[in-house]
Amino acid sequence: MRALVYHGPEQTSWDTVPDPAIEEATDAIVRVEATTVCGSDLHILRGDLPEVKPGTILGHEAVGEVMEVGGEVHDLRRGDQVIVSSVSACGHCRACRDTTPGQCRRGGGWILGNLINGAQAEFVRVPFADYSTHRRPWDLPLDDAVLLAEVLPTAYEVGVRNGHVCPGDTVVVVGAGPVGLAAVIIARLYSPRRIIVVDLAAARLEAALHVGADAAELPGKMIAELSEGPGADVVIEASGEPDGFVLCTRAVRTGGHIANIGAHGKPVTLHLENLWSKNVTISTGQVDTSSTPWLLELVRYGRLHVSRLVTHTFALDRMQDAYEVFSHGTTTGALKVVLHRE
Amino acid sequence: MRALVYHGPEQTSWDTVPDPAIEEATDAIVRVEATTVCGSDLHILRGDLPEVKPGTILGHEAVGEVMEVGGEVHDLRRGDQVIVSSVSACGHCRACRDTTPGQCRRGGGWILGNLINGAQAEFVRVPFADYSTHRRPWDLPLDDAVLLAEVLPTAYEVGVRNGHVCPGDTVVVVGAGPVGLAAVIIARLYSPRRIIVVDLAAARLEAALHVGADAAELPGKMIAELSEGPGADVVIEASGEPDGFVLCTRAVRTGGHIANIGAHGKPVTLHLENLWSKNVTISTGQVDTSSTPWLLELVRYGRLHVSRLVTHTFALDRMQDAYEVFSHGTTTGALKVVLHRE
Repeated sequence: MRALVYHGPEQTSWDTVPDPAIEEATDAIVRVEATTVCGSDLHILRGDLPEVKPGTILGHEAVGEVMEVGGEVHDLRRGDQVIVSSVSACGHCRACRDTTPGQCRRGGGWILGNLINGAQAEFVRVPFADYSTHRRPWDLPLDDAVLLAEVLPTAYEVGVRNGHVCPGDTVVVVGAGPVGLAAVIIARLYSPRRIIVVDLAAARLEAALHVGADAAELPGKMIAELSEGPGADVVIEASGEPDGFVLCTRAVRTGGHIANIGAHGKPVTLHLENLWSKNVTISTGQVDTSSTPWLLELVRYGRLHVSRLVTHTFALDRMQDAYEVFSHGTTTGALKVVLHRE
Repeated sequence: MRALVYHGPEQTSWDTVPDPAIEEATDAIVRVEATTVCGSDLHILRGDLPEVKPGTILGHEAVGEVMEVGGEVHDLRRGDQVIVSSVSACGHCRACRDTTPGQCRRGGGWILGNLINGAQAEFVRVPFADYSTHRRPWDLPLDDAVLLAEVLPTAYEVGVRNGHVCPGDTVVVVGAGPVGLAAVIIARLYSPRRIIVVDLAAARLEAALHVGADAAELPGKMIAELSEGPGADVVIEASGEPDGFVLCTRAVRTGGHIANIGAHGKPVTLHLENLWSKNVTISTGQVDTSSTPWLLELVRYGRLHVSRLVTHTFALDRMQDAYEVFSHGTTTGALKVVLHRE
């Protein structure tokens, strides 16, 4: 088959590689109908994740058809249409049984396209297939389904839910990439007073207004506006940048929440000299994808309009073009790029 | 009367000053039977709190007798014995009515010995007296009552409660000063698996064992021990030092809580590059003292043994000696120093 192989920092190629095969009885082989590129793939290319070894096929979000299952896969059969979650879950360990499969202790967690071969390929081996996939209903559009593999559950679980967004809240989202904008769309379900999105790129600020932000601003303007009141009830960090995090701590009100979604590669400065007495709660998190079935129903029933998050589509073999467009999203306006099987 | 007056960094004196008088109809004048020195008083002396103006009487914890009340004080009368909380509360603003009087928006919060004259004196004017005091029952020992003015509610509300200490938890307390040790004593009520206290001073580690810690260790030993398991469920920061905070982030397990009690004067480093995916919650907070009545009952009924937190007592006019002993607590072994009216 053909697949995007990582050969070390800044080096990938679209190679011919052996087809994946069942290795464990809990595996499934899925033919990829659609996949996408994530900000963390760009971190890998920058060398920020040294655990990713050269030779690894990248990608951790996919939708496809089950081609083969191991002898201990009970809930899937050949021909099923599935969403392959970014998080693999053994389903048996303490973390999996205690609602945090993203922290799976028996070989799961975020491993696809990280510790094992991933989904930017014609086929992908999905470990722990019963617990690492969700059925895709026939009426769920393909590109929406791709968003359910990681973007939507991350924005919900790590952003909106951890941040405790409530009706009437002022919500600030720092970073208007796909996950930040998904957080805007999902936060809307909770009837906030207003959602302010902050980014440095004009194209992304425009996109924020398109998906339903009440305001889309540069950092200085947001801080100036909030300084006239108590500050934001909830601030969602979706930039992964140290400055973005500091901005969150400046925007949050006394008693407010900061929900960090961003994958950070460096330490950040926490201004405890200002925050120690402010009753602030800061949360971090890895997605569990346990909310995927609920979000899927919201999408199906028309309560969650997410299709604008996909700005570009490509044929699967144009993977490297997709990376190029996605990695320059702040100028190309690209949000999520989806690759389809021909 | 006589009082401890702040004259600028490192400068205080035990001065003769005018007796306080009722200024607002919600004020009470309390004759101080007992008061104490707090770590934040030392911060003031170091010049860390520039809002404290020279000429201010320090101190924000007291127990005493009501001498006089303003016309709008309804719940107190002359002769009542009261605990004067460190936090003054108007009782009417949104913060006060929403369970966070520590964040009072109409002139309350921590103002005693900070923005207005405090309690290290023979008499103190207590603003918003109905909401800023708690009755002292006749059978509550004087020194225990002093601890209820701030130390115990802080350790509980900002440490144990914010940290969500649960039965079976491994709890780490960083910093074995009076508040850290009070957190140990209160955390015990929740039947943790073990409580490990960390400090650099041998005298304080010894004190930690006396108040019920299962282990009292230097930072390196604690980290080495925890590295054999998943880490601490709850870590309580009670040092107010940047290194103490970083230690907390190294000790906490995936999915655990860090409850910051320490008053910090400088920014700290938050290692989000390690923490972003760890489902960690970090809380900060200013005490509300709303838990004081509950803690008071626990002390009275013998469920909370706190008297060992008071290591030294002095006559009120030996205030400067008390500061000396308290400020060298890591060598003198001093925890809480209490000053009594002769």
